[in-house]
Amino acid sequence: MNVAERAGTEARAEDRLARVALTWLTEPGTWSVHRLVERLGAPAALALLRDGGAPEEKLRATVAARLTAGDPRVEAARALERADRLGARVITPDDAEWPIQLEDLRRLALSGASRRVDTETAPPLCFWVRGAWPLAEAMERSVAVVGARAATPYGVHVATELGYGLADREWAVVSGGAFGIDAAAHRGALNSGGVTVAVLACGLDRPYPMGNTALFDRIAETGLLVSEWMPGEAPLRPRFLIRNRVIAAATRGSVLVEASARSGATQTMRRALAIGRPGMVVPGPVTSVMSVGAHELLRDEPGARLVTGVAHVLEEVGRIGADLAPPTRGPRRPTDELDDEAALVLESLPRRGVRSPDAVAARAGVSVRIALRKLSLLEELGLVVRRDGGYALGPPSDRGAADTEPGGPAAPE
Amino acid sequence: MNVAERAGTEARAEDRLARVALTWLTEPGTWSVHRLVERLGAPAALALLRDGGAPEEKLRATVAARLTAGDPRVEAARALERADRLGARVITPDDAEWPIQLEDLRRLALSGASRRVDTETAPPLCFWVRGAWPLAEAMERSVAVVGARAATPYGVHVATELGYGLADREWAVVSGGAFGIDAAAHRGALNSGGVTVAVLACGLDRPYPMGNTALFDRIAETGLLVSEWMPGEAPLRPRFLIRNRVIAAATRGSVLVEASARSGATQTMRRALAIGRPGMVVPGPVTSVMSVGAHELLRDEPGARLVTGVAHVLEEVGRIGADLAPPTRGPRRPTDELDDEAALVLESLPRRGVRSPDAVAARAGVSVRIALRKLSLLEELGLVVRRDGGYALGPPSDRGAADTEPGGPAAPE
Repeated sequence: MNVAERAGTEARAEDRLARVALTWLTEPGTWSVHRLVERLGAPAALALLRDGGAPEEKLRATVAARLTAGDPRVEAARALERADRLGARVITPDDAEWPIQLEDLRRLALSGASRRVDTETAPPLCFWVRGAWPLAEAMERSVAVVGARAATPYGVHVATELGYGLADREWAVVSGGAFGIDAAAHRGALNSGGVTVAVLACGLDRPYPMGNTALFDRIAETGLLVSEWMPGEAPLRPRFLIRNRVIAAATRGSVLVEASARSGATQTMRRALAIGRPGMVVPGPVTSVMSVGAHELLRDEPGARLVTGVAHVLEEVGRIGADLAPPTRGPRRPTDELDDEAALVLESLPRRGVRSPDAVAARAGVSVRIALRKLSLLEELGLVVRRDGGYALGPPSDRGAADTEPGGPAAPE
Repeated sequence: MNVAERAGTEARAEDRLARVALTWLTEPGTWSVHRLVERLGAPAALALLRDGGAPEEKLRATVAARLTAGDPRVEAARALERADRLGARVITPDDAEWPIQLEDLRRLALSGASRRVDTETAPPLCFWVRGAWPLAEAMERSVAVVGARAATPYGVHVATELGYGLADREWAVVSGGAFGIDAAAHRGALNSGGVTVAVLACGLDRPYPMGNTALFDRIAETGLLVSEWMPGEAPLRPRFLIRNRVIAAATRGSVLVEASARSGATQTMRRALAIGRPGMVVPGPVTSVMSVGAHELLRDEPGARLVTGVAHVLEEVGRIGADLAPPTRGPRRPTDELDDEAALVLESLPRRGVRSPDAVAARAGVSVRIALRKLSLLEELGLVVRRDGGYALGPPSDRGAADTEPGGPAAPE
């Protein structure tokens, strides 16, 4: 590493530490903090706030109160150490795995917003992430499934089916890790062997609710646990709504399964609709109080779309995907060189986990002999790996690097 | 009766007979027949068709085939006699109880219509009616509740509640008399003591289905049985769809409770929406095949409105009522002369049936003494009658006449 490279690495470490410290010092989503970071950079913004230079009286008071509890840089450094032991990492907009679609939060304006949680909806400064999957990759093809904690058996059934069906079609299922609909959606995705992401409103060392601990462990193994809050932070009530803007903005669209009147889940939907994401709603019996929020949304929000299953959801998020400009990529990738059969074989591998050559051949519609030959070729190209008697996609970092030309955006560390 | 009056009465009897004969000779809703009647009058149109002068080849063939079964004037005369014995009457657009809103069928154009039942949607030529209520009065404040025959317990529950709630708020509940949702809506209305109207697709002497015979008898006692088809006519399959345009056009709005994909009930909704009536849909569990048609409508028809109960329905039909010009009335009515207490007492009487003076007083919020005094006054004005130990509204014909100044529209015969 030469001097310039070392300086760059140090600057990024400093930026990361400052973003963590800023998130601790003020709540995520605070617009004035976000603007300071944009103007001065995170370290200078932190120094300014710490010296009592916040541009607003209210923010100054918040900062002053928080400073009595500790020094933000010390707290941040301690949290980063703790996260290391926890197997969690911090990511910032400098990282390749940062979901750029979060920038759409800039255009989030909720009509009639007066509460702090409805007006302070700036993009996150950083995320704590646990799990092997790069966050941006998981979120690129993702759908949020949200709803009531006190779900009915009907809602649990529908959310599980949606989670299963979406993950089975290789869409990541994003939710909030709560009891009821959230847990059902995560479980459905896990049961299909797909990717699921729990976006939490507290530290990753104490995922809330405790009753879902086993679920969180399963999610961390094959999917992702994500939070804006550093380890140790508690799931305070307003944080759920602050968190919901991330669920709405990071995904291609949100589906509401069950919700009582004016529940937090309907707020996620209003956030999704307000930034132009598809807001989808599963109706239910009009005799069920747990569908009142769903029906309210369908009546009050002209953009809300009634969906009854996975096919309808894919219709909505698929269309948006087609309408959006394709994500920026390096000009040439190894996969561009593949012949049709090799491409088919590559597409026949599961997004996570291992598949036997026989199963790959059956999926690709080629003979086992051809499948094995193409798998060897793909292995040479570093696109697949042999593991547990079958084949799997190459490790994400390798594939991430394959997507990035020298001089392109930085790969995750 | 002077000569001119007698000639007028005879002309109207002749018109009535011709309309009945035309409906027998061709199916209701046929546009070319409707236009002939408008241009020539019903008797001349009938003569023209009988003489093989139908303007279209297809209609000529239909008429020729039907003529082999009998003479239309003879069949019509026989049917009128039969109807008399049955306690049914025939009404035509000349009658005061003709629902003028049926004229809105002129603007019914179903997109992509190709089947005969979707294109031949002309207003009816006549109705057979059984029941004491004037049809126009019942329909002026009416809502259609339609849905699946193979309804689930959920659908039956919701339709019964809607029927009850609407009738309880003095809206007539209109449906098709079928098993399932239709019957539940009628029953709900009957249970609240309100008015319900069954619009049938066959002769009133053989209301279909037989299994609802007891229900039809109850409806005829306190509400109305209505049909475009003469006594003796069978409920042929296409007739249900021909009939549905009447349910859609005669009411202020239609509510669909349960329907499988592309059911007849969804066709009623599309007809209602096509002429600008509120088309309301009750959602259900997405796991129920009996709600597929409801959810399809909500997804495909931009005008379809999700409703979850009576309050939502009243919001829709109430708004339309307020948007529409008020019905034409004579400039002064006896009720204009009433003082506030008398008006309250009058409003406290049930739309049908008898109420005791005590109950009237309680509803009106006046003492029993004042209630009795005002009831006497109202009786003198012919607005209420004493009956079965209580008071009832005056007979509809009297109230009809009271609504009409000399020189105004003709009163029912």
